[in-house]
Amino acid sequence: MTGFATHIARRKFLAGASATAAAGALTACSTAPVPSGASGTPAGEEGSEGTVTPALGEATVDFDGVHQAGVVTPAQAHLNLVGFNFVEGGVDREGLTRLMRSWTEDARRLTGGAAPVGSLEPEMVRAPANLTFTVGFGPRAVELAGAAPLAEIPAFSRDQLEEKWGQTDLVLQICGDDPLTVSHATRHMVRTSPTYATPTWMQQGFLHASGTRRPGETPRNLFGQLDGTVNPRTAGEQDEQVWREDGSTVMVVRRIRMDMDEWEMLDRTSREESMGRTLDTGAPLSGGGEFDAPDYGATDRYGLPVIDPASHMARARPAEGHPEQRMLRRAYNYDLPPEADGLSNSGLVFICFQRDPDEQFTPVQQRLDDLDRLNTWITHIGSAVYWIPPGTTEDAFWAQRFLAV
Amino acid sequence: MTGFATHIARRKFLAGASATAAAGALTACSTAPVPSGASGTPAGEEGSEGTVTPALGEATVDFDGVHQAGVVTPAQAHLNLVGFNFVEGGVDREGLTRLMRSWTEDARRLTGGAAPVGSLEPEMVRAPANLTFTVGFGPRAVELAGAAPLAEIPAFSRDQLEEKWGQTDLVLQICGDDPLTVSHATRHMVRTSPTYATPTWMQQGFLHASGTRRPGETPRNLFGQLDGTVNPRTAGEQDEQVWREDGSTVMVVRRIRMDMDEWEMLDRTSREESMGRTLDTGAPLSGGGEFDAPDYGATDRYGLPVIDPASHMARARPAEGHPEQRMLRRAYNYDLPPEADGLSNSGLVFICFQRDPDEQFTPVQQRLDDLDRLNTWITHIGSAVYWIPPGTTEDAFWAQRFLAV
Repeated sequence: MTGFATHIARRKFLAGASATAAAGALTACSTAPVPSGASGTPAGEEGSEGTVTPALGEATVDFDGVHQAGVVTPAQAHLNLVGFNFVEGGVDREGLTRLMRSWTEDARRLTGGAAPVGSLEPEMVRAPANLTFTVGFGPRAVELAGAAPLAEIPAFSRDQLEEKWGQTDLVLQICGDDPLTVSHATRHMVRTSPTYATPTWMQQGFLHASGTRRPGETPRNLFGQLDGTVNPRTAGEQDEQVWREDGSTVMVVRRIRMDMDEWEMLDRTSREESMGRTLDTGAPLSGGGEFDAPDYGATDRYGLPVIDPASHMARARPAEGHPEQRMLRRAYNYDLPPEADGLSNSGLVFICFQRDPDEQFTPVQQRLDDLDRLNTWITHIGSAVYWIPPGTTEDAFWAQRFLAV
Repeated sequence: MTGFATHIARRKFLAGASATAAAGALTACSTAPVPSGASGTPAGEEGSEGTVTPALGEATVDFDGVHQAGVVTPAQAHLNLVGFNFVEGGVDREGLTRLMRSWTEDARRLTGGAAPVGSLEPEMVRAPANLTFTVGFGPRAVELAGAAPLAEIPAFSRDQLEEKWGQTDLVLQICGDDPLTVSHATRHMVRTSPTYATPTWMQQGFLHASGTRRPGETPRNLFGQLDGTVNPRTAGEQDEQVWREDGSTVMVVRRIRMDMDEWEMLDRTSREESMGRTLDTGAPLSGGGEFDAPDYGATDRYGLPVIDPASHMARARPAEGHPEQRMLRRAYNYDLPPEADGLSNSGLVFICFQRDPDEQFTPVQQRLDDLDRLNTWITHIGSAVYWIPPGTTEDAFWAQRFLAV
């Protein structure tokens, strides 16, 4: 264990001890490294610098592990997704290795609430608040690393892709429950990279704040829909759908514009029918609760299907005989100032993780592109795909087993 | 008391009762309507719709009162500041009255976690999380209301104002600790207004999340500085600096770009000297703690002043014999994707409240414009001023006593 890791472990221990001493009822306010949404009392603890940081600030997600953080980690409140391209003239395997070594070291420290070596802003890193970093490799980086080639995401007929949201050589997904920490962490990683890669785009997003959600609660998008109900929740499901044998996964990013102006013209019934689920609880229109199986055979008193076969839910479900057509959705909302046309500028930074997009994302999206009642109000305007290297041990850097051979 | 107000009061009562029953130590997790940063346990309570909403979600700020909310309210984590202009052809007094009546009714309900009448999205309003709305009148609206004319903010020599961040007829400041709630609340108010006013700009900002700050903790800006140390904190100070006799105040908005790229070239000493305060605790460089008075006469062993007379703190302090040159600062950070030039696109949505900008904001800003070491790294790119009408009683709407005569 490095000195840094020891330091963090000690802080956690102190936090746990003080919580226990206070009252049994304080369990709900524990400062243990819990999923986002499961902490957030101002009771606080004495930090190593003599300042009191409330519990959400102290909450951390482990950086090292079999897999990278930020994939099956419960979605935090804030996202900065930054696409980087290699500098002109390109980057060789050695350059990519140097960048990964430097990024990993800094990300690991920031994740634990410690300042990166040489940082002049230690005040800005003290509240990790479930900060996570996830690195992804675009096709050129995959080639440099000698990893298995990435699947290509085909063009879909309804796509209106804008070049500015396109494929990049690298991506950093930075998530956390504190917007100031996420902002500083992003700034730090961007300024560390310019010898090798510079940012091409940044996609910022948000969900409910930690402290307004129950642990495990499915987030809502700006159409008011619960988004992510059918996600893999058990380790077994995640192994089936998300993780490759080497611990890696593949991320697909789609920027989806949502036409709030037109959507809001609909009554609630139409909104629910286009989705196939109720807006309040997210239950299938055939009844039950959010996590109950839809009954696609159910009919109303006129003999019509209760769940429209063209609804988003019906079209997104795995095709018969293809149970592999599932994935982990980890989408964030965006809501920006209206552009010159005065219309809403809102939507989804749709992010999903899977073993193989050719067998998971792509056939599902092809089906939605062919027919989905939601298509009237959504447009895909960005697309990219990244290989997410496996997780790290304490003394290793991202993709080390691929780059350092 | 309206049915709506009763409903909210009942929810508060239930929340308070359950917290008391659980444990004395749970005081720190109370769901009473407390300042931002002083709540946030996931313990939750049974809401009226049968769903459990964690405590931060339930926290509310009173809508009605002598003054509008969102001024001396401790700054929440998120800001949407929306500038509106009257529709072409203009709006008369009757139109402005109708808009205020409608906005007030909806804002009051949203503040309490209730859906506005006719809303099709009750799910999106259930976690107010200290939501506040503050309406401001630009010169044309002030004239319609027959209120005292607004002070003009003069042009300062260093200003590089961009028209797109300029004066508008109305402004809505929407703040809260939950970004999804703030987003929906903004959307609701914007779509309610088009007969009378349409949004011209939206300035979005953030501070530390609730749950990572101690109650009353001064927020940090992106330069790492504590920002707002000398704010009026007692009711007496606020009456002196902020509130006019009729309960109104005046808001000045300045959009200030901060050049992160150049700022980060500085060592810590230079950063602290340009501000006049330490970065870690915000204490004056002459010693003590954040809230201790600076000693401008203190010298170092070479006889040089410890606090540079050209530092931001020294220049921003009230001129001798002018104790009225103080104001309430309520600034938010912005940190957007870099623009085409690839440079940082970060800064401050600087908002301040005062009785009279001519005697408070303007002389201070004139002094800073003349000389302030921070000027090397900051540029004012937007400017606007608004009259903030007094607060409301339960049966009244914003500016009613001015409009409905």
